[in-house]
Amino acid sequence: MGDSLGHLFRITTWGESHGGGVGVVIDGCPSGLQLSTEDLQYELDRRRPGQSKITTQRKESDTARILSGIFEGCTTGTAISVMVSNEDAKSNAYDHLKDLYRPSHADYTFEQKYGLRDWMGGGRSSARETVGRVAAGAVAKKLLQHWGNIQTIAWVEQIHDIKSSVDKEKVSSDQIESSIVRCPDPQASEAMIARINEVRKSGDSVGGIIRAVVRNVPAGLGEPVFDKLTADLAKALMSLPATRGIEFGLGFDSVSLKGSEHNDAFVMQEGVVRTRTNRSGGIQGGISNGEEIDLRVSFKPTATINFEQDTVNREGKAVKLKAKGRHDPCVLPRAVPMVEAMINLVLVDHYLRNRESRL
Amino acid sequence: MGDSLGHLFRITTWGESHGGGVGVVIDGCPSGLQLSTEDLQYELDRRRPGQSKITTQRKESDTARILSGIFEGCTTGTAISVMVSNEDAKSNAYDHLKDLYRPSHADYTFEQKYGLRDWMGGGRSSARETVGRVAAGAVAKKLLQHWGNIQTIAWVEQIHDIKSSVDKEKVSSDQIESSIVRCPDPQASEAMIARINEVRKSGDSVGGIIRAVVRNVPAGLGEPVFDKLTADLAKALMSLPATRGIEFGLGFDSVSLKGSEHNDAFVMQEGVVRTRTNRSGGIQGGISNGEEIDLRVSFKPTATINFEQDTVNREGKAVKLKAKGRHDPCVLPRAVPMVEAMINLVLVDHYLRNRESRL
Amino acid sequence: MGDSLGHLFRITTWGESHGGGVGVVIDGCPSGLQLSTEDLQYELDRRRPGQSKITTQRKESDTARILSGIFEGCTTGTAISVMVSNEDAKSNAYDHLKDLYRPSHADYTFEQKYGLRDWMGGGRSSARETVGRVAAGAVAKKLLQHWGNIQTIAWVEQIHDIKSSVDKEKVSSDQIESSIVRCPDPQASEAMIARINEVRKSGDSVGGIIRAVVRNVPAGLGEPVFDKLTADLAKALMSLPATRGIEFGLGFDSVSLKGSEHNDAFVMQEGVVRTRTNRSGGIQGGISNGEEIDLRVSFKPTATINFEQDTVNREGKAVKLKAKGRHDPCVLPRAVPMVEAMINLVLVDHYLRNRESRL
Amino acid sequence: MGDSLGHLFRITTWGESHGGGVGVVIDGCPSGLQLSTEDLQYELDRRRPGQSKITTQRKESDTARILSGIFEGCTTGTAISVMVSNEDAKSNAYDHLKDLYRPSHADYTFEQKYGLRDWMGGGRSSARETVGRVAAGAVAKKLLQHWGNIQTIAWVEQIHDIKSSVDKEKVSSDQIESSIVRCPDPQASEAMIARINEVRKSGDSVGGIIRAVVRNVPAGLGEPVFDKLTADLAKALMSLPATRGIEFGLGFDSVSLKGSEHNDAFVMQEGVVRTRTNRSGGIQGGISNGEEIDLRVSFKPTATINFEQDTVNREGKAVKLKAKGRHDPCVLPRAVPMVEAMINLVLVDHYLRNRESRL
Repeated sequence: MGDSLGHLFRITTWGESHGGGVGVVIDGCPSGLQLSTEDLQYELDRRRPGQSKITTQRKESDTARILSGIFEGCTTGTAISVMVSNEDAKSNAYDHLKDLYRPSHADYTFEQKYGLRDWMGGGRSSARETVGRVAAGAVAKKLLQHWGNIQTIAWVEQIHDIKSSVDKEKVSSDQIESSIVRCPDPQASEAMIARINEVRKSGDSVGGIIRAVVRNVPAGLGEPVFDKLTADLAKALMSLPATRGIEFGLGFDSVSLKGSEHNDAFVMQEGVVRTRTNRSGGIQGGISNGEEIDLRVSFKPTATINFEQDTVNREGKAVKLKAKGRHDPCVLPRAVPMVEAMINLVLVDHYLRNRESRL
Repeated sequence: MGDSLGHLFRITTWGESHGGGVGVVIDGCPSGLQLSTEDLQYELDRRRPGQSKITTQRKESDTARILSGIFEGCTTGTAISVMVSNEDAKSNAYDHLKDLYRPSHADYTFEQKYGLRDWMGGGRSSARETVGRVAAGAVAKKLLQHWGNIQTIAWVEQIHDIKSSVDKEKVSSDQIESSIVRCPDPQASEAMIARINEVRKSGDSVGGIIRAVVRNVPAGLGEPVFDKLTADLAKALMSLPATRGIEFGLGFDSVSLKGSEHNDAFVMQEGVVRTRTNRSGGIQGGISNGEEIDLRVSFKPTATINFEQDTVNREGKAVKLKAKGRHDPCVLPRAVPMVEAMINLVLVDHYLRNRESRL
Repeated sequence: MGDSLGHLFRITTWGESHGGGVGVVIDGCPSGLQLSTEDLQYELDRRRPGQSKITTQRKESDTARILSGIFEGCTTGTAISVMVSNEDAKSNAYDHLKDLYRPSHADYTFEQKYGLRDWMGGGRSSARETVGRVAAGAVAKKLLQHWGNIQTIAWVEQIHDIKSSVDKEKVSSDQIESSIVRCPDPQASEAMIARINEVRKSGDSVGGIIRAVVRNVPAGLGEPVFDKLTADLAKALMSLPATRGIEFGLGFDSVSLKGSEHNDAFVMQEGVVRTRTNRSGGIQGGISNGEEIDLRVSFKPTATINFEQDTVNREGKAVKLKAKGRHDPCVLPRAVPMVEAMINLVLVDHYLRNRESRL
Repeated sequence: MGDSLGHLFRITTWGESHGGGVGVVIDGCPSGLQLSTEDLQYELDRRRPGQSKITTQRKESDTARILSGIFEGCTTGTAISVMVSNEDAKSNAYDHLKDLYRPSHADYTFEQKYGLRDWMGGGRSSARETVGRVAAGAVAKKLLQHWGNIQTIAWVEQIHDIKSSVDKEKVSSDQIESSIVRCPDPQASEAMIARINEVRKSGDSVGGIIRAVVRNVPAGLGEPVFDKLTADLAKALMSLPATRGIEFGLGFDSVSLKGSEHNDAFVMQEGVVRTRTNRSGGIQGGISNGEEIDLRVSFKPTATINFEQDTVNREGKAVKLKAKGRHDPCVLPRAVPMVEAMINLVLVDHYLRNRESRL
């Protein structure tokens, strides 16, 4: 269960890395939005394996097909179905994983839950599952642009112990995309690429932190109790594979301040209510206040490594997992479009919900 | 909208700090659980204002009434309605807040969303809203005890810059409850109490970090895609007032490790599959693996302070918010039962859902 | 489970006939609607037992209390909680029902489902459960009036074999309310009252048919696939106790016509697209077409009768159920406001959903 | 919106008659069920156009592809995606419908709702949308067989004014399938086929009534308040195209009986609690009582006829709709597997939900 997300703009994803493909059904997209496969493809290409030398080398063109919900170039208001076929599915590459549990993967937990598991490429726990999310996120992105140029920008802030320095008010998509690791700080970017190459060669992996800001958010998005904007963003982002933590505004660092230091004073600026500071990260009481939304998500190092590891098999015997074949040394460059997609999906849902808050 | 949480065990809360009361409807509690108001009252008393000198001094007995769903001491399987009346509602205490927005409160965002707001005590954004959550959490706690002694324990790990040192494997509820700040490290507890008293006197406030572990969790809880256990816990906890971040296992610190250092090797222990380390915090691929769940939630310093602050009023004029009356210098001691309640609510929901995973 | 209904305007009811009371939480009511207890009380009084000599004589004032969600006479956009206390709960009147199953009641099915049951007054299967529905329906009614004078009118069309003749285009609430059986055909009304009195005296019961029309419905309400307006109305109405069937427009009689006889031709009238006939009952393809919605709901005769009946007890022995005490000879007069409430709740939900159909 | 149905066993359908295909995602199917495309194909073939001379002659092989959720012949517990490509999509056949509204079709209501419509073959309002329902229904059917031989059988009870006489206790699938109109009364079947041929030649259409029984239903399915089994079956069945009414047990005819005549006395039979009669149609208080579920659904005559009809165009001018091309003179033979599918989908959902009713 749980293959759907959203209340008014609701996506349902399906697919494993070794079946017929992966896809998504988008329910609740308003009619009248111009949409083409190109809109989806741009985002899918940013998520695609093999896009650079520092990501996994699985070969997938990830070509999106829109199967329903579009008529004469426009959304009809009914379900949009998007499918991407699997191409590079080497099923025999997984034979050695059939009977044992890869450490810190979902092998063991899936088998405990379901009594069986699809051991080819991780089945539903594969990062390939996110194809549908990113395709749907591209639709969300277009809606947000249409409604008021609401713009989500994410980038790699840290890889392993390499931190970047970025002016979050000014950073642009172009700057981010000009780096294959998607870090807009050129020096840090270079160091990150070197580090990823290093662990790639040694068969190891690294994680990191993605930061995201959302600009031009209207005030009022988010519901007061359980469906706070913070809560729904946290859920959406923590549902991405390998995420370990999320924080908004000052996040964990807010703890070091007193209330008198942390509160964001309201001020008038050009006739508009603004806050002098934005320690709250654009969300107060779970509802957007019109300031920039600001959040950070941490990703653990990828579990697949080319090391011999201790584990157990299905019969409960201690065994060694031998290193084999290609691995993804760092998921973060490809996770940037995933993070943006999840944020955009939540924002569209709350944008629609907010339109029904008043009589 | 958004006053409900959960899929199979679903709660709906209602109420403001200055209306007839606050409450919760619990839908989906299985029949046959022995339940009394005492079960609820124990948890409500831990959440109650005025329980110690370091919390807000609002006087509320917070006496729970169970209005439906219980017959001859047992749950009937139908909706359980719980109500707590408001007692200490000094409505004139808020007159000065009618036309201005308190910094870092939800005043401005509510008004932007709804076009109006209940300015008495924050309306629905009041922490009093959590009464219903804690009452429902008490029911969840009993279910988890019944099913297998699944036990959630939360404590205050940090207040402002005062950190504690706690053996999370051994810490007990008794140790936690013996400290009015709910920190089981006696030295840290003392320092925290002193710090809270200090800011209370100066009219300021502090935040902190609550840590929680869950023991005896069966493997298999959580769904593979959007409704990962991490994701649903993140949503539930980030829906609590004043939360700013959450992390699982090593969380943000996982970034400093390589995959070879972070992976939790599987080992057999007494015939059971276990992990040698628990850097994943008991959840892998979004599903519990049977190890202790381990998470941390950060709370910003309370927004209400007894300082003069810059703000604007409803007409868009810069004004000063004058300090008035009682304030809560630190919400964390009372947030401990809230955190436990949210975790228990999510666990019950996923426990029920997991029972339907197999044929 | 299943104590909630609706997607954007969502109600959750609670309560049994012999607990602390009954009530409802309304989630998703837009802010800015003027609402008072009088609005609710008018509808509750129409549902109230003892309102006339032909209904059950249980004494309940059914006084509504609004516990949350209203501020200065207006809805705030947050959860509205309404409660009605139980007054006439004679618990010892049910002792003889403790161990046996009343024929065609929910006693047996509840016990099979839950392993136990609240045998006082039927527990959650009591018609008293509909108090919350009617209170919430009164809020829905006000919203529909505000949005465009959308008006639902229901009446008793048939009791037992007594049919009425009513001009559904012209019938008014006043005409309906002037009859204690809520049948606006004076002759039929008189005959129905006589028949109900007759079965009341003999200890028997009768059912009947309620017809409802909705005027001034905008075109576009209803979703194309599963959440068709017909489908959601059918669900809402068939969730009322004792309902056995529902039909829209010509309903079962449409079967006797050919397509050429049944189709509703489109015509222009005063510049507006209309249909010459309305055999579809105002809904085509599951979506309202702007014509009057027209539906009929059948109710079986009440199961509680003052006859000795064959049944079995919890030990599986054949026993006689002895007739005892008051009974409700005909639920239909009181079911009229219930039918209107359910229709209005569905319409509000779809009105809100429809506002999000377009960009 | 509204492309999903179900709470624990949840389907999401997508697709129009003239896009890339139609399909369904099934979320919540337990792991461990053996499932193949053959299981789906059997039901899809019963729904397929062109299966006999009395249905529409659109040529579609309706070959099902399972794209996800199956591993080594078994369900994995994760999302099952099924797709059927469109083959016979003659897009130029619809040019004359581009600017006008076919009477009693969804053309006008879709355009009012969305501001535009897919005018090729009805877009999402096409009966082709039910392909996904029937495929998902085949999975539900297998689950019900596995759990206890729960068996849904539907047949055509009436076409136009031709009624059949069928022993509903004994009727078998073989008898039903031996008739191309799916009426197991041989004489009525012959008359129905003649009538359908007659209206086919004259360009007209007829509707009718489908009856369904469900055998071996365990007691306890259905929830007490809004999600009554009657209510959820009513919604599911009334969401099928062209449905106009539904009734359970004696349905509208229950009105002619008094309570003393209608109540189903409980009796012991072979150690089991049974009812002597089954006027309730197997559901009491919204919950199954273990007796056969018995229901009837009425379908209006198909709106597409080969007659010249009055209508209006998008500019609001009165125009004539000219008859053109093939039409479906009677949808009922193909609606039989749709009715069974919807019933089975609801039963599986409630079967799973009921497993969570008790501690």
